[in-house]
Amino acid sequence: MSKNPDGKQIKVGILGATGTVGQRFLTLLAKHPWFTIHVLGASSRSAGKPYAQAVMWKQTTPIPSVVRDMIVQECYPQHFAECAIIFSGLDADAAGDIESAFRSADLAIFSNAKNYRRDPSVPLIVPLVNDSHLSIIPQQQSLHNPPLKKGFIVTNANCSTTGYVIPLRALEKAFGPIESCLVTTMQAISGAGYPGVSSLDIIDNIVPYISGEEEKMEWETLKILGGVADGDDGTKTFDMHARHPLRVSASCNRVPVIDGHTMCVSVRFQQRPPPSPQQVREALVAYTPEAQSIGCPSVPVHAIFVHEEPDRPQPRLDRYYQDGAGVSVGRVRQCPVLDIKFVVLANNVSIGAATSSIINAELAVLKGVVKVE
Amino acid sequence: MSKNPDGKQIKVGILGATGTVGQRFLTLLAKHPWFTIHVLGASSRSAGKPYAQAVMWKQTTPIPSVVRDMIVQECYPQHFAECAIIFSGLDADAAGDIESAFRSADLAIFSNAKNYRRDPSVPLIVPLVNDSHLSIIPQQQSLHNPPLKKGFIVTNANCSTTGYVIPLRALEKAFGPIESCLVTTMQAISGAGYPGVSSLDIIDNIVPYISGEEEKMEWETLKILGGVADGDDGTKTFDMHARHPLRVSASCNRVPVIDGHTMCVSVRFQQRPPPSPQQVREALVAYTPEAQSIGCPSVPVHAIFVHEEPDRPQPRLDRYYQDGAGVSVGRVRQCPVLDIKFVVLANNVSIGAATSSIINAELAVLKGVVKVE
Amino acid sequence: MSKNPDGKQIKVGILGATGTVGQRFLTLLAKHPWFTIHVLGASSRSAGKPYAQAVMWKQTTPIPSVVRDMIVQECYPQHFAECAIIFSGLDADAAGDIESAFRSADLAIFSNAKNYRRDPSVPLIVPLVNDSHLSIIPQQQSLHNPPLKKGFIVTNANCSTTGYVIPLRALEKAFGPIESCLVTTMQAISGAGYPGVSSLDIIDNIVPYISGEEEKMEWETLKILGGVADGDDGTKTFDMHARHPLRVSASCNRVPVIDGHTMCVSVRFQQRPPPSPQQVREALVAYTPEAQSIGCPSVPVHAIFVHEEPDRPQPRLDRYYQDGAGVSVGRVRQCPVLDIKFVVLANNVSIGAATSSIINAELAVLKGVVKVE
Amino acid sequence: MSKNPDGKQIKVGILGATGTVGQRFLTLLAKHPWFTIHVLGASSRSAGKPYAQAVMWKQTTPIPSVVRDMIVQECYPQHFAECAIIFSGLDADAAGDIESAFRSADLAIFSNAKNYRRDPSVPLIVPLVNDSHLSIIPQQQSLHNPPLKKGFIVTNANCSTTGYVIPLRALEKAFGPIESCLVTTMQAISGAGYPGVSSLDIIDNIVPYISGEEEKMEWETLKILGGVADGDDGTKTFDMHARHPLRVSASCNRVPVIDGHTMCVSVRFQQRPPPSPQQVREALVAYTPEAQSIGCPSVPVHAIFVHEEPDRPQPRLDRYYQDGAGVSVGRVRQCPVLDIKFVVLANNVSIGAATSSIINAELAVLKGVVKVE
Repeated sequence: MSKNPDGKQIKVGILGATGTVGQRFLTLLAKHPWFTIHVLGASSRSAGKPYAQAVMWKQTTPIPSVVRDMIVQECYPQHFAECAIIFSGLDADAAGDIESAFRSADLAIFSNAKNYRRDPSVPLIVPLVNDSHLSIIPQQQSLHNPPLKKGFIVTNANCSTTGYVIPLRALEKAFGPIESCLVTTMQAISGAGYPGVSSLDIIDNIVPYISGEEEKMEWETLKILGGVADGDDGTKTFDMHARHPLRVSASCNRVPVIDGHTMCVSVRFQQRPPPSPQQVREALVAYTPEAQSIGCPSVPVHAIFVHEEPDRPQPRLDRYYQDGAGVSVGRVRQCPVLDIKFVVLANNVSIGAATSSIINAELAVLKGVVKVE
Repeated sequence: MSKNPDGKQIKVGILGATGTVGQRFLTLLAKHPWFTIHVLGASSRSAGKPYAQAVMWKQTTPIPSVVRDMIVQECYPQHFAECAIIFSGLDADAAGDIESAFRSADLAIFSNAKNYRRDPSVPLIVPLVNDSHLSIIPQQQSLHNPPLKKGFIVTNANCSTTGYVIPLRALEKAFGPIESCLVTTMQAISGAGYPGVSSLDIIDNIVPYISGEEEKMEWETLKILGGVADGDDGTKTFDMHARHPLRVSASCNRVPVIDGHTMCVSVRFQQRPPPSPQQVREALVAYTPEAQSIGCPSVPVHAIFVHEEPDRPQPRLDRYYQDGAGVSVGRVRQCPVLDIKFVVLANNVSIGAATSSIINAELAVLKGVVKVE
Repeated sequence: MSKNPDGKQIKVGILGATGTVGQRFLTLLAKHPWFTIHVLGASSRSAGKPYAQAVMWKQTTPIPSVVRDMIVQECYPQHFAECAIIFSGLDADAAGDIESAFRSADLAIFSNAKNYRRDPSVPLIVPLVNDSHLSIIPQQQSLHNPPLKKGFIVTNANCSTTGYVIPLRALEKAFGPIESCLVTTMQAISGAGYPGVSSLDIIDNIVPYISGEEEKMEWETLKILGGVADGDDGTKTFDMHARHPLRVSASCNRVPVIDGHTMCVSVRFQQRPPPSPQQVREALVAYTPEAQSIGCPSVPVHAIFVHEEPDRPQPRLDRYYQDGAGVSVGRVRQCPVLDIKFVVLANNVSIGAATSSIINAELAVLKGVVKVE
Repeated sequence: MSKNPDGKQIKVGILGATGTVGQRFLTLLAKHPWFTIHVLGASSRSAGKPYAQAVMWKQTTPIPSVVRDMIVQECYPQHFAECAIIFSGLDADAAGDIESAFRSADLAIFSNAKNYRRDPSVPLIVPLVNDSHLSIIPQQQSLHNPPLKKGFIVTNANCSTTGYVIPLRALEKAFGPIESCLVTTMQAISGAGYPGVSSLDIIDNIVPYISGEEEKMEWETLKILGGVADGDDGTKTFDMHARHPLRVSASCNRVPVIDGHTMCVSVRFQQRPPPSPQQVREALVAYTPEAQSIGCPSVPVHAIFVHEEPDRPQPRLDRYYQDGAGVSVGRVRQCPVLDIKFVVLANNVSIGAATSSIINAELAVLKGVVKVE
């Protein structure tokens, strides 16, 4: 088992604990080597009830015994004061105010919600890609009056963005800037939450549109793959990949798949001639993000697993590999229009959601950004 | 009802009448204003039986009464001598020899099979696009020894190619050559025939690979959108869009949809600046192929129907519009990497298969390529 | 075309016109030989808008042109005063009050909602089964103060009840009372309306429970298959099959099928020895309900279509036969526990919903229960 | 970890190792505490190849590393001579001859195939129900000339039979003989093997027929729930529940579910008055088969898990509970026609197939029927 530097259990709270993402958080945290589930937060409708009564449990494993009888709390900071880390699985309509209030109460929040992703002082971190963006946290804390000592918000990316920026990052590390990227997604229904997509809309069907998703992918990619620039006055800003402008075109589709977003990706490199498919394959296999080298316990052995079979990855067969914490890439080949094309599969409820938040928190602990007493 | 120039019924035969495409041919031809089903051909296993006993009928409408008791014949030319037109729904492993033998017997074949699509004297015709390629037929006939009088082979394209070349043709007609095209398909299971795709491979799944399909789309597009060049010696050749080289990149996926191929298409025009999304929309709506103006009875009113709703077309809702004889386009918008992107839906068993062959035959009748006595 | 006795068009209104059942009503009524769509009623949210803007259209055929621009009205009786017939596709939470108010305004309502099905003066009519129950209408009208002249409510049955009582009625007509009946349903998602069943609950899944459905099937069957008893004081009552008590046991399941409820039915007859499977098959084929002999235009040619193939009926292949207005029965065979077992398929959105209401209205016109001026 | 009485590893071979059931065997055996995979047998087409090359692996976990490079053998007894136990996942068309040859070579076979299930000297064992039938093995061995010392065939039941006889056995143990049982199944596609059911036959569909399945369920139930009768001459015979004749009526349907057979079951007891639903629930929970008390390592903690929620069990949520080794029961309630009805869910590829064979082998080891040296 990985070692927590302090050898102590770290108390964590979950906001939105009864929702889809919340259920996934509980499932993963119940067996986490460092983190101890201490408080469950949900809406006033659920508050006061034992968790097993408050939740409509939709996971394929039973409710973890450790939380079955835990009494659900309302999402007020005072109930979470003892938690070193707060995971938020709140919906966007609730997350804005609640996460802000929690940060003001000097609590450290790792959020799945989209509300603060575009905030210029909030890092948007895909844990296998840009944990270096944690360096903006002191600036975020200093903007508060009085400055925060422990509180901050870290967001993780949209589930579709998360999956494909991991191989993009591996390619940029190996071959330099990507100039343009065209991605077509086939996204699982679980990405829309519960009840989410009506069965009448998706059985024997494709919906070639997901509201706001293409804009999110096109924008988030730039923030994540870009760097943090230091201004003359000491302030830090996200550079949005500005030194090497990157054009991203996303087409997002909903498909009748339970879990796992499949994406067809074509990229053009700045470097001429571009790398060969074999070089790309090797670079993907060799990619070792810092979260692996630093020892995050929830990180998979293979950040990127590269398939050699012509017909993989497939969501039903490959989405649970490594508990969904890595991504699968296959069909690396030349693109007659851009340079290289390939298929990516990412488990949207694992690396695309709760698992990302948890690894982000692990990174923050190991880097001392979260203060564990 | 459309008028056959001769006012006569035209006798037609169907090869592969018990297969998936054959069943679709029968369903359409049983109510055709010009064509009379005269002979049904199938393998020796079916020959000699009444059609209703020979077939495993899988259509949602009953077997047309006119063919229920028709005795199935083996696929020998002598059984089809009275037919002015032969429609072939044969599988590729049988089509090569049989279609060749039928042509040698001076019969006119309209084929769905892939075997002769790359033959330099065989036209590959999408009826709403390049019926002008029928002009190569005399050359095809002259290559036979002795030259054929009535026999020839006309092929139609792969079901996924068919759908997206229709809007591409409309765009080239309005705005000049397309320089590059990137297409990602989400193809229905019926495209693989019966039994075709195992349910274990596709329920709750995507298969990001269809053997040979990407190569077909990339190659067939050039033949179809290209012209027919006249050589100095009077010979004709397909120019494969050579004067304006066109790069096509296809990524083909199988999805759990019964009928209807959905495609995300991005194009870059040679013309700078490129047309706006609104201009593209108008050009698609305005597109009137010759098959419409010349009066083919199976042609739809709208060759291309353009949706304004943000989430259309969808296969389940839109695939049966106009009996599947047109295509649906939606989400016309700018592409940050190429110029314009949009979504196409084509019914792979209608315009993508049997309907195309039938309209091709109608065109050949109206243009006098098929000799009706 | 069937002849309306008066040779006049009959004006009809639709309550809940934007809902799932309402959309089906419009699709059917737009091509009806007698009925003219005159008013569309929906909630205040939709009122005042042209229908095409108010509705989220989910049918596979386009919005009928005759209603596209019709302005939607609120569901107040004054807007419907000119309508001889009102079809109600309202949800249960709205139907109670609105239908009552409409009846009080002396309007004739044919309702899909469950609210008045158990009312002892309201007939619950499956049009191919018990149109004789229309005889209770005068009593229903007389209960109002002052007595109604034209107004009444006729309900049709739950979509799953409707399908299987048709063959049960055919069997009772041929062989006398059924003593017990055990039915297990596999019900389509469209039976739950829109958005209805979450895709996360039903893709790759079965839900072995539909709230209230088993009770409805067990109770409604008795009312429908029972007769109308005349009391000494001239009052009429539904006898609930009381002279020959009938025990019904229903097990209801939701399955990932778009349209079409499939049911496995076992029955035990009072008559000993019971009929053979062949006798049962013949009785089902021979069944001719009054709605056929009296000339209702929406009645199918085959009230019950009996399949001989061992693996039919199947919802995807058979649900649209005869536009879904009949039922399909297959696999008639001996039951080792009761007497006879078979499989029934009924299209829940056609004969199981809107089509039933429409045929009920046709029956009421032909029998003079609806007063057409 | 459970203790093998001898503390030794037991070498096992798998016949049909590349098939669907074979893959499941390997997945389970690779982590088994007693059994060591020693030989893999498959057809001549696969023989000579490393397993990873010979197989089209379709499991959601990777190929166990211990078998990846194992060279596949043809199914000849000499290759399996060192194996104390042979598991057979062969198809029925191959199983008859091969299993017979293996038994003649004095090998102990635990088979999933149907070929010998009806053999009067071969036990048909559902491990949580009738392991007592192992007592017929000596008689089976004595029928061979010369008598076998170690060889025999033990079969397990059809996947649908297996699931529902477990609760039936629990009920008979608690309340005495069941008189009649009516079961309607909704069976997963994986029960038909690979490629098995065509996707065109089952997406958005139900097939109300599985060839031979109803007969199997009706017959196998009697053999399994019946006892072993001792004749005057010392011979043993399966009594087929003869002292209390049991009538079973099965209706079998294929549904679009990947794994997990759901069954609606109604039973009538001999005992009057019958037990209440609550008594039935308690009896199911209390049921402890011998395989649990004797210490089989692959037996689940809950042979029967009883759900209290009204809408459970559901295949997608409950099929992997306890690795699919138990069964789930829900909705225990009164049946208006028979006595009690309930829903059963059994994982057809686990307890319904490979897991049953493995527990049968564990039982045979613990009872000394398999001779471990």
